Amino acid sequence: MSDEFTDDEKAGFYKAIYSRRDVRSHFTPEPIKEETLTKILHAAHHAPSVGFSQPWNFILIKDLKTKQKVKESFQKEHERASKLVEDPKRSEYLSLKLEGIMESDVNVCVTYDPTKFGPFIIGTTSIPEAGIYSVCGAIQNLWLAARAENVGLGWVSIVSNDVLKEELELPEHIVPVAYLCLGHVTNFEDKPDLERSGWLPRLELKDVIYFEKWKREEDESWDIIQKMIRTNLK
Amino acid sequence: MSDEFTDDEKAGFYKAIYSRRDVRSHFTPEPIKEETLTKILHAAHHAPSVGFSQPWNFILIKDLKTKQKVKESFQKEHERASKLVEDPKRSEYLSLKLEGIMESDVNVCVTYDPTKFGPFIIGTTSIPEAGIYSVCGAIQNLWLAARAENVGLGWVSIVSNDVLKEELELPEHIVPVAYLCLGHVTNFEDKPDLERSGWLPRLELKDVIYFEKWKREEDESWDIIQKMIRTNLK
Repeated sequence: MSDEFTDDEKAGFYKAIYSRRDVRSHFTPEPIKEETLTKILHAAHHAPSVGFSQPWNFILIKDLKTKQKVKESFQKEHERASKLVEDPKRSEYLSLKLEGIMESDVNVCVTYDPTKFGPFIIGTTSIPEAGIYSVCGAIQNLWLAARAENVGLGWVSIVSNDVLKEELELPEHIVPVAYLCLGHVTNFEDKPDLERSGWLPRLELKDVIYFEKWKREEDESWDIIQKMIRTNLK
Repeated sequence: MSDEFTDDEKAGFYKAIYSRRDVRSHFTPEPIKEETLTKILHAAHHAPSVGFSQPWNFILIKDLKTKQKVKESFQKEHERASKLVEDPKRSEYLSLKLEGIMESDVNVCVTYDPTKFGPFIIGTTSIPEAGIYSVCGAIQNLWLAARAENVGLGWVSIVSNDVLKEELELPEHIVPVAYLCLGHVTNFEDKPDLERSGWLPRLELKDVIYFEKWKREEDESWDIIQKMIRTNLK
């Protein structure tokens, strides 16, 4: 395998990056093949981790009783959240479909174990949060691999971590980082749901990039890239 | 563009997943083309984000004075960290090359802004940490895209966030999440440095997967995948 990517290899890679969606509806009852799910988990496990600590675990969930408990937690948290915002945003919020817990074939809880290979983990001595950041990298690998395998994924963050800890029997020191819903879908949307519905706009690339210091939007040593970024080149 | 991935597209995608490395040495002086860097940043900006909040910013750094300050912070934190571990691990730790701040062409600080599009951000009302998790997803996109563009990346987490905040003039509410070193490299190693050097072993896939509940390693409804995972199928 050559180090360098061919144009075709790049195309495959970027297809995953740009066509990945957060899926809450469109799940079909078609089960995910075991081989497919294994590939997705394998990709997740090959994420980078601080000090090579691999501090993640993946709990695979199909049990309807567990799903139901998580769904109830979603409903409670969702109701609570809706009270934090005023109409017309409130009605708009309530009209959004924000989870596919019951309809998706497999749920996966991704957890962080700060004790794995500890206590001395390279790279966490100044920034202990680097451990949990590694778990997020694994989640992103998992998400992209799911897309490459034509599997939809939705991240449910409107849920109580206390409920997750209780239902999944997590010890006190284990942190639930993400609750994911995976399943085949009728289609992948072109754009994120919240962009399509007009909830929020996609920022332009130039709006998220600074040069040398916070908020510095112009800098002569970055002249060329500044122009490129303004054209939103892909 | 069809939803489904061809075998070639999958191959390109998985090549990025499995050949991505955390690069600390091997940087060459070859500058990163502006077009390449723009592509990498564009991929980062197309990560998923909770409530579509896109809470990330990327500060591009070439200024040697800034790099030098960050390098000094690394040296201080590294020295401090080395005192937390006893010989022979201490000597082993001190022999590892853990950053490429000065040698890499471009440094990028990725930050989290909890106020962007706030205060009501969908999905952060129960788990506010979901915002910072989104930034980590963007970092992983950035890292993989760098690999697809044949650019090495090393994440420096042995550094003081206070120094980063001061040097980059970050306001109080902005969180520095990652300090990344990007540059062309002589080669990508087959395995992570800390695995090659024997610092820590790669866990097997079966060691990070549970079924239905924490620590449940066997479950009859997951019989087939359990066998597959044990073979460490890729």
